[in-house]
Amino acid sequence: MRKAVVLLSGGLDSATCAAVAKDEGFELYALSFCYGQRHAVEIASARRVAQWLGAKAHHIAEVDLSAFGGALLDETSQVPKDRPPGPHTRTIPPTYVPARNTIFLSYALGWAEVLDASDIFIGVNAVDYSGYPDCRPEYIEAFQKMAALATKRAVEGNNIMIHTPLIGLSKADIIRLGMGLEIDYGITHSCYDPSVDGLACGRCDSCILRRRGFEEAGVVDPTRYQT
Amino acid sequence: MRKAVVLLSGGLDSATCAAVAKDEGFELYALSFCYGQRHAVEIASARRVAQWLGAKAHHIAEVDLSAFGGALLDETSQVPKDRPPGPHTRTIPPTYVPARNTIFLSYALGWAEVLDASDIFIGVNAVDYSGYPDCRPEYIEAFQKMAALATKRAVEGNNIMIHTPLIGLSKADIIRLGMGLEIDYGITHSCYDPSVDGLACGRCDSCILRRRGFEEAGVVDPTRYQT
Repeated sequence: MRKAVVLLSGGLDSATCAAVAKDEGFELYALSFCYGQRHAVEIASARRVAQWLGAKAHHIAEVDLSAFGGALLDETSQVPKDRPPGPHTRTIPPTYVPARNTIFLSYALGWAEVLDASDIFIGVNAVDYSGYPDCRPEYIEAFQKMAALATKRAVEGNNIMIHTPLIGLSKADIIRLGMGLEIDYGITHSCYDPSVDGLACGRCDSCILRRRGFEEAGVVDPTRYQT
Repeated sequence: MRKAVVLLSGGLDSATCAAVAKDEGFELYALSFCYGQRHAVEIASARRVAQWLGAKAHHIAEVDLSAFGGALLDETSQVPKDRPPGPHTRTIPPTYVPARNTIFLSYALGWAEVLDASDIFIGVNAVDYSGYPDCRPEYIEAFQKMAALATKRAVEGNNIMIHTPLIGLSKADIIRLGMGLEIDYGITHSCYDPSVDGLACGRCDSCILRRRGFEEAGVVDPTRYQT
């Protein structure tokens, strides 16, 4: 059985991406990060998703990004609310964390080599997304080329393949895909600014994209929102 | 004054690289990693080097790579001893840590963005080195291309420049360069397998390359070796 490292934030996209990897026959090695995020409640969701998918292992890596600041790392910063949904490529929001996907993919690359895995799955999306530069196809392609030169495995001719099955899908398409794979989206968490008891705010970019996705897909949204 | 993030392990190469950055007029932001290495004594050396160079800041990032295993991370593994010096590109040694430079450079990329710095210095060397794939010029070039697509800064037209001033130098040349910059190599640490009181083993790849470099440069080696 082929092994795949699947990046699992605990959100809707990464859960769907991991379910695709499972559906394609991979043995799943789930990877999540404690990086100082204010919405660390997502780690609990990641655990539930990994368990639900029957992941062979789930590694939660401690990578302290608190020095990077910004709205997701700094409790004194404000998460933007009530912004109209849609691509925001010209106004990357304050929830942007510098080089986050690069750091996470680099860690995944190292762990994949340790596991002797040739495949990494990441649920990036360049349609209904927050405008982060490290979610775009051209970025992923460049990372893949770099990875081909970075590791012992690659030098020995066993390159790593980075899979991005959601990159061109709308949020509604992602939800439809996931419903076909029988995902229980009630165990996922998307909100950047949850209440202390884990309820989604319903107003951050991530909640707005999620809500609209369920509406467009014609699927009941199981999320518990504050508003 | 232009800011530069300088990766500082506490070893001979990174100290020389940082001194070059200072000599070129950069304000130094030193970056070191606690990643579970058995030779964590190098962090104390990194602190001394950062202080000696008058770094504006020194960030020691916690990035747990202990899940990666190998001779530098696993105390039960053996660090190879008494190997003949020279490039070992066909036999990457067990001191290799998967994707280490990729993870470190990715973190540096993020911190540089936070600092509004356009330059990163890394003391990689592809001449007198241990054969690690992520020390080669083609790897650095690919990382640079990826970085140009990865961050908000880059998307806004402010690309990052990765400087590798040592990449084509022999160890003796690096030491000569450093002596010209008046580095006190006595405060640096290279050994992979030091004694509990911090003495260099004198027999690992890193010690052998260092010793031979001082001999070839005709410079007295200030290192305190066990043997």
